[in-house]
Amino acid sequence: MKFHWGIVSLLAVLLLANQAQAMCGYESCPATKANMINVHLVPHSHDDVGWLKTVDQYYYGARNNIQHAGVQYILDSVIQELLKDSSRRFIQVETSFFFKWYQEQTEQVQRLVKKLVNEGRLEFTGGAWSMNDEAAVHYQSVIDQFSLGLKVLNDTFGACARPQIGWQIDPFGHSREMASIFAQMGFNAEFFARMDHREKSKRLEDVAIEMIWQSSAALKDSDIFTGLLYRHYSAPPGFCFDILCSDEPIIDSKSYDNNVKSRVDDFINYVKTMSNSFRATHIMVPMGDDFQYEDAEINYKNMDKLIKYVNERQVSGSKVNVFYSTPSCYVYELHQMMLTWPNKTQDFFPYASDSHSYWTGYFTSRPTQKRFERDGNHLLQTVKQLSAFAKLTNEKQTEDLDELRQVMGIMQHHDAITGTEKQAVARDYDRLLNDAVVHAQDNARDALRVLTNLTAGEFDSCLEVNISVCAFTKDSANNVVVTLYNALAHSSSQYVRIPVKEENYLVTDEKGREVASELVPVPWQVLSIQHRSNNTQHELVFKATVDKIANFYIRVLPGGKSLSENQVTRSRFEKLHAIKQRLAKAVPADENDDDEFTVQNSLVKLTFDSDSGRLKNVEMNGVSENIEQTFAIYKGARGDNGASERRSSGAYIFRPDGDINILSDSVDYTVYDGERVKEVHQHFNEWISQVVRIYEGVNRVEFEWLVGPIPIDDDTGREIVTRFKSDLASNGVFYTDSNGREMIKRERNLREYFEPDMSESVSGNYYPVTARIALEDQQKRIALLNDRAQGGSSLDDGQLELMLHRRLLNDDAFGVGEALNEEQFGTGLIARGKVYLILNSVDAKASTEERLAQHEIHLPFWKFFSNSNTASSVKPQSLPDFSDFPQSVNLLTLEPYSSDEILFRVENFLDETEGHIVSFNIRHIFDSLGGKEIRETTLDGNMALDEVKRFKFHHDGSLPKTLEYYTTPFEPLAVNADDDSSKFSVTLNPMQIRTFIIKW
Amino acid sequence: MKFHWGIVSLLAVLLLANQAQAMCGYESCPATKANMINVHLVPHSHDDVGWLKTVDQYYYGARNNIQHAGVQYILDSVIQELLKDSSRRFIQVETSFFFKWYQEQTEQVQRLVKKLVNEGRLEFTGGAWSMNDEAAVHYQSVIDQFSLGLKVLNDTFGACARPQIGWQIDPFGHSREMASIFAQMGFNAEFFARMDHREKSKRLEDVAIEMIWQSSAALKDSDIFTGLLYRHYSAPPGFCFDILCSDEPIIDSKSYDNNVKSRVDDFINYVKTMSNSFRATHIMVPMGDDFQYEDAEINYKNMDKLIKYVNERQVSGSKVNVFYSTPSCYVYELHQMMLTWPNKTQDFFPYASDSHSYWTGYFTSRPTQKRFERDGNHLLQTVKQLSAFAKLTNEKQTEDLDELRQVMGIMQHHDAITGTEKQAVARDYDRLLNDAVVHAQDNARDALRVLTNLTAGEFDSCLEVNISVCAFTKDSANNVVVTLYNALAHSSSQYVRIPVKEENYLVTDEKGREVASELVPVPWQVLSIQHRSNNTQHELVFKATVDKIANFYIRVLPGGKSLSENQVTRSRFEKLHAIKQRLAKAVPADENDDDEFTVQNSLVKLTFDSDSGRLKNVEMNGVSENIEQTFAIYKGARGDNGASERRSSGAYIFRPDGDINILSDSVDYTVYDGERVKEVHQHFNEWISQVVRIYEGVNRVEFEWLVGPIPIDDDTGREIVTRFKSDLASNGVFYTDSNGREMIKRERNLREYFEPDMSESVSGNYYPVTARIALEDQQKRIALLNDRAQGGSSLDDGQLELMLHRRLLNDDAFGVGEALNEEQFGTGLIARGKVYLILNSVDAKASTEERLAQHEIHLPFWKFFSNSNTASSVKPQSLPDFSDFPQSVNLLTLEPYSSDEILFRVENFLDETEGHIVSFNIRHIFDSLGGKEIRETTLDGNMALDEVKRFKFHHDGSLPKTLEYYTTPFEPLAVNADDDSSKFSVTLNPMQIRTFIIKW
Repeated sequence: MKFHWGIVSLLAVLLLANQAQAMCGYESCPATKANMINVHLVPHSHDDVGWLKTVDQYYYGARNNIQHAGVQYILDSVIQELLKDSSRRFIQVETSFFFKWYQEQTEQVQRLVKKLVNEGRLEFTGGAWSMNDEAAVHYQSVIDQFSLGLKVLNDTFGACARPQIGWQIDPFGHSREMASIFAQMGFNAEFFARMDHREKSKRLEDVAIEMIWQSSAALKDSDIFTGLLYRHYSAPPGFCFDILCSDEPIIDSKSYDNNVKSRVDDFINYVKTMSNSFRATHIMVPMGDDFQYEDAEINYKNMDKLIKYVNERQVSGSKVNVFYSTPSCYVYELHQMMLTWPNKTQDFFPYASDSHSYWTGYFTSRPTQKRFERDGNHLLQTVKQLSAFAKLTNEKQTEDLDELRQVMGIMQHHDAITGTEKQAVARDYDRLLNDAVVHAQDNARDALRVLTNLTAGEFDSCLEVNISVCAFTKDSANNVVVTLYNALAHSSSQYVRIPVKEENYLVTDEKGREVASELVPVPWQVLSIQHRSNNTQHELVFKATVDKIANFYIRVLPGGKSLSENQVTRSRFEKLHAIKQRLAKAVPADENDDDEFTVQNSLVKLTFDSDSGRLKNVEMNGVSENIEQTFAIYKGARGDNGASERRSSGAYIFRPDGDINILSDSVDYTVYDGERVKEVHQHFNEWISQVVRIYEGVNRVEFEWLVGPIPIDDDTGREIVTRFKSDLASNGVFYTDSNGREMIKRERNLREYFEPDMSESVSGNYYPVTARIALEDQQKRIALLNDRAQGGSSLDDGQLELMLHRRLLNDDAFGVGEALNEEQFGTGLIARGKVYLILNSVDAKASTEERLAQHEIHLPFWKFFSNSNTASSVKPQSLPDFSDFPQSVNLLTLEPYSSDEILFRVENFLDETEGHIVSFNIRHIFDSLGGKEIRETTLDGNMALDEVKRFKFHHDGSLPKTLEYYTTPFEPLAVNADDDSSKFSVTLNPMQIRTFIIKW
Repeated sequence: MKFHWGIVSLLAVLLLANQAQAMCGYESCPATKANMINVHLVPHSHDDVGWLKTVDQYYYGARNNIQHAGVQYILDSVIQELLKDSSRRFIQVETSFFFKWYQEQTEQVQRLVKKLVNEGRLEFTGGAWSMNDEAAVHYQSVIDQFSLGLKVLNDTFGACARPQIGWQIDPFGHSREMASIFAQMGFNAEFFARMDHREKSKRLEDVAIEMIWQSSAALKDSDIFTGLLYRHYSAPPGFCFDILCSDEPIIDSKSYDNNVKSRVDDFINYVKTMSNSFRATHIMVPMGDDFQYEDAEINYKNMDKLIKYVNERQVSGSKVNVFYSTPSCYVYELHQMMLTWPNKTQDFFPYASDSHSYWTGYFTSRPTQKRFERDGNHLLQTVKQLSAFAKLTNEKQTEDLDELRQVMGIMQHHDAITGTEKQAVARDYDRLLNDAVVHAQDNARDALRVLTNLTAGEFDSCLEVNISVCAFTKDSANNVVVTLYNALAHSSSQYVRIPVKEENYLVTDEKGREVASELVPVPWQVLSIQHRSNNTQHELVFKATVDKIANFYIRVLPGGKSLSENQVTRSRFEKLHAIKQRLAKAVPADENDDDEFTVQNSLVKLTFDSDSGRLKNVEMNGVSENIEQTFAIYKGARGDNGASERRSSGAYIFRPDGDINILSDSVDYTVYDGERVKEVHQHFNEWISQVVRIYEGVNRVEFEWLVGPIPIDDDTGREIVTRFKSDLASNGVFYTDSNGREMIKRERNLREYFEPDMSESVSGNYYPVTARIALEDQQKRIALLNDRAQGGSSLDDGQLELMLHRRLLNDDAFGVGEALNEEQFGTGLIARGKVYLILNSVDAKASTEERLAQHEIHLPFWKFFSNSNTASSVKPQSLPDFSDFPQSVNLLTLEPYSSDEILFRVENFLDETEGHIVSFNIRHIFDSLGGKEIRETTLDGNMALDEVKRFKFHHDGSLPKTLEYYTTPFEPLAVNADDDSSKFSVTLNPMQIRTFIIKW
């Protein structure tokens, strides 16, 4: 059966209805009544995968003194209650919790659960490993964690378990990319509960609380029905029948306290008021909240009564009809009604819950955790590819890879990557991710022993290279092999840095050819970090070119040639006494030489002000611009949160108190002018320093910042930004990425739909910057690329800022109950990271260059270390060759899918303004992987693409006459090894992602 | 089959084992292991029938903001969990809650519950309607509420539901009478959890925490095994697996948090420590607490794991064996072990939880509620008898009687009659009891229309006669019939008082004969009570003699003869201006006549001090004694309860602050010297007054006190006592009743077993006085009888005091969370009541006279009012004649038992020092009730007496060789109408109660 892109007629729907596995949901939907308000009660429990308690504490119900919550009991209890009455429904959202629970059940219980799933009584909604955040997450990890969750559901239950609805009820703002991912997975709708308070009011007034979200500027047919829940995700006031609430039960037997009449009156009144804000004669009422349903009997017993007595009123003329339902049944009914809906094109950032509560602090909260998560993703992609290439299938290997997949799924949770969890929970996330990384490295080792000639290689990773520490090279880097893994599709040339002692090194490639290298001193601010093992005060830098895997050999040469001495060109120290000890070899230069000095290579020229020591001009790509960079400090507001205007800046909220403090004093600096790398080490104050760096042949400027311990001895919380000031006439406009993929235009103090409350003029203009923030005028464009999610803005024309680190002294009263005051070794946490700056002309394909750089900062080479005496003459297994992929094609995923299947996901990473449709053939990849068959799936990998039949909703202004659906617009790839190679051609529209399963 | 009193051999036991209905419990007991510590885990939920919330709020789980508790869910949940695993056990205690729940269940659930009961998985323990208090309750009501609870269980489930064990885990001290009732019901043991902290310590040290309680000084074979729970009634610390706790769950799956080892270690350590305090190799560990098991899945899931992992240790040598069990299985194992146990003869009052916390305040707390409960019992006994005589069997009648039975069962609860509930809950108890009284009066009316010639009589009761208000006579008492009901067995002559206007009345009996009467003014202090309807300022007093029912006819005679004017003999007013208005007719007498004045009739002579206006001497029964009576005020301690010595006096705790304030000023008084009644109205202060009263021909002195509103405007809480001071050399000894039945000897500052902590020398000597307190020396004896439960003591030789009323300003921090500050109409609550004083010679059968008076104060005539024009010539149905019962035989109960059965319970109310064995024949009663068969049962009426087989335990010092049991010591009555009348003979030993069911 072949589908064409577009609309399927009602007839086709009826035909399709026989596809039982796809219809179990709607067939089992409750009967509704015409001419009534049909109230879909949706029992649900919102189970955070860590927040105030750790994941396992939540699961087991431990530490209930912190928060009463036990997911094992919720599931025990809900399943039991569902079995009692076939009309009861429940939606399960977080697959991580569900799967852990399911595995602990007896076969008998598992059978009963399957029955519930097959009858639509237990409906999976959302269904990812966790309910991911939407601001700080990278789309690669979101896709991964949906793939993981949906795969577990599919493997366990089959098609009836497939979620139809996105259920992002708690994240603090909503990204367009998330909506796009839902559309690409074939979901019918998405619901959430948080929206700027002004927008919500306006939408309620406009009866526009439900809408069609055009979730991509690039992708066609990316519309997805989107609804805001009416009253958070909670039951109507007074109707929380849960052990965590104290609302009145329905008392219907003989008692002085019998309250049936008043409870039914209250409910009907609520429903009537609510329905005024909705277009359809159907409304959805969530019945649940955080960790509810631990004793589901209470919930269902009372809801049973509510339904009974509300519906009994119908005999006396009531027009309210209430029943258990699910979001998919609700959306099904809306679709059936053929109404029209308003349009939405941008996103729902930033989220403000009141005039002074902009939830823009969490864009940056816990910067080291946000970075560690990116490292986790990096290793995960590396290990996935390695495992697929090496066909690792034994139990430990599968478990180890799954562990990292799962932990990365957890890290996407909206209280993990967001940094809005308690400190103890943050530590547990670190522990989980560290354990998973350690185990996954075993897989990498197993794979590399097959895929390289280092059959006995140690392949140690160095997780502390960000502070120039590597256990493997700490004592000696002599006779060390560095195996570089390139997770990108295309061959890449990158500068590699290895922490080493100051010796004379020779680097050679696999063919024994010398690779030019040089030593650079590590900034003394890094060297002096407490508890850093301080043996390696230099980094060996060389440029490596790698297809997928390449070994580089490091040897120490006799004679102590010190490159660094020659490299110091100038520096200025105000506090020589303190610095001299640490940097004995640095020679202070005359400060009065010139007003400015330059650092430049063949592509980039940086001009610094000699007096201030700070950057003032950048020249590259044929463009010159006065770009001043410095750091600035917001003082965090400290209030008692008793009223909106007394809100504190905290883990969620960014609320600066007074004006920003721009660090405008002169800074100490030292310039290292190497052949390949040139660095300006800047010392801003006791706890802020930076390396500004350019590499020969690399068309960008790297700013490696080091912030912390942020002082609090004056009882002040601080939030640190890096600021770039230019003369670009950006006219209030700037651009930020959506989860690392498409860019969204931002206009200062403006929103798409409503007039925002700009009482907080700074934080109200903050947006999540997952990967890139940019601005331009008619000539020039400046982009900043970051190495982790941060909050960012352009508060003045030509200006860009990224928030790097935060340390605060008050809770902001949104539940976490702690100030965001990260400490380590008894003092404030130190964070380090990189920002890339690219200056370009606006008419060049500036953003394409940015995207390429983005891939490199996102997935640079992963370094594995071995001793060179482990080399053998065994010829390594050959790897697939991706070199003929068009430049804009990204190898988004390549991973073991089952014991004899590999998932293969490719993306055209340029949008319609940057690139065009590309085609390429994957036959050689298929063959190289030993492929027998290949099939195409939805984005998540778990549903055949030709089974997609997604509700199409009608826009306001149209006159709907038929039920319409989206189906696949092209013939999905479905070929086998015997087919002609031409059938292996893959075409990608701009921004399109295609997902394949290769059976081998 | 005929049994003989004494010991049944093992052989007999084996024979009896075939009686399935009696063995279901022990047959289903868990297997135990020799040479191990066998740990009987006993899952239970302690469900107060009202406390912080009302009964229905607790049942339905309403108002969880006050306390999280919902009994309906507990039972839903527990039953569900029991069904999952046949090894699981639960004990159900409060039958009121259980029955309400059971009636709401489907037949299917009811069948499953029956299965659980029949298999011993759900075991009823205690089983009364509520877990009654033991200090303030009257034995008649305790027996009633056990009869009610056990009957419901028996009717619903049969013999397997019969409780074997008393489970008084929460009451605040334990009465011997309660233990005696358990023994008389055939129970095998009793457990509780509260004991004086010093006694508990000593018993733990002595390994004497379990004992044999000789529960009656009079009854033979009243020994009952009694155990104090080791650690309140709670699970071991850390092992509360309940939604109300935050103890750690047992985490046994793959998790960083896996805690099996440490949890098992902790439990085994606890068990080992605990077992050091017990004699047997079995210990009982309660697993539960207040309102626990609402989500029983959590409890059982974790207990399952605990059992599994603790027992798994046995393979590596652990000697701890743990399993689900019940108290009856535990006691069964103890009995099997044939150990010996220490002896206990007195009771467990007062209860002190620490040096400064004597729980003796609740003996008096809420005096008006304590009195209303007695009124409820009075009407209940009246309506029971009337219903049985009139054979009321229709549905409404049955329901109405059941309602009062049930509410009276609730009123016995240890937070109801005790006065330790919240104010709002006290109001709900009032409402419940008032409703039940109103409904039960319908039964009385139905019955009296059959049993009197007033076939259209209204038979209104007057519940406010205690403040001389009666709606029926308020406007006119002309042509009113007063129908008096005598609930006692024997004909009684009592003075009757009817609130009336001041007119000239003629009272006649049923034969038209005039009955002498007189008017007495109501004290102005009563008349001025706020909101009292103030029409009737006098009471008409006449002496009535009644067998069971008698009508008296009241008419107003023309001419306004005012008896009261003549009656005023003397009075003294310090505040004439205030008093004159109210008592215009009272003529002040000369104060300086004499030093003293007397009030006397043919039996009693009272001498008052003319100056002080207070009683100074009593002469009666040929004895004269200087008895001074006054009131005195304790100041209630006010502390923050942060430490023992900072405890406040409160609803539970009586803790006076400093010395008592004895009201020693002169009092205003007026003497009314009638022919039949003589009264001295005393005015002690603005809020304390009293009538001292003697009736012609009545051998006692009546003190009718009126206390309140207790002032608090000086921020002082007050506790008011009435004090009687005599010259009796009582030598530290006094006597108080145990729940209105046997007397117990008290010795000031001493206890039976241990040296008490007398840091609180007053409250530490307080005992519950349910009916009587007495002291004597070698010549004389003084007894006080009260009309409700109160605290009382003899703090000095010759002195007696009863606490009448309390108003306090601080909570005492034992949970109720409110100060005992009763208010009404915006000011402090006023209480009124009576104390009878009897002075006698010590060698006379003083206590016999006291007991007779006790019956009259407990159950005086109940007055029903009708209009005399309702009389008809219909001959009323004749009633059984109890006149030939020996004087010491009390008609304890006569009530409908089923639609064709009547329960008939008789008691020899004299103990072995006061009376002797009596015999009488009940054939005429049987016939009069239309009897066909009669059978004898245990005290509660629900088990055939010949089925009793109660564990006999061995005392320390004996050498047990066989298992021994108590069975019935005589041939139970089991005859029918055809049998010879001689077979209807009933013999009663001193204090013996026998219970029969008459089928008609």
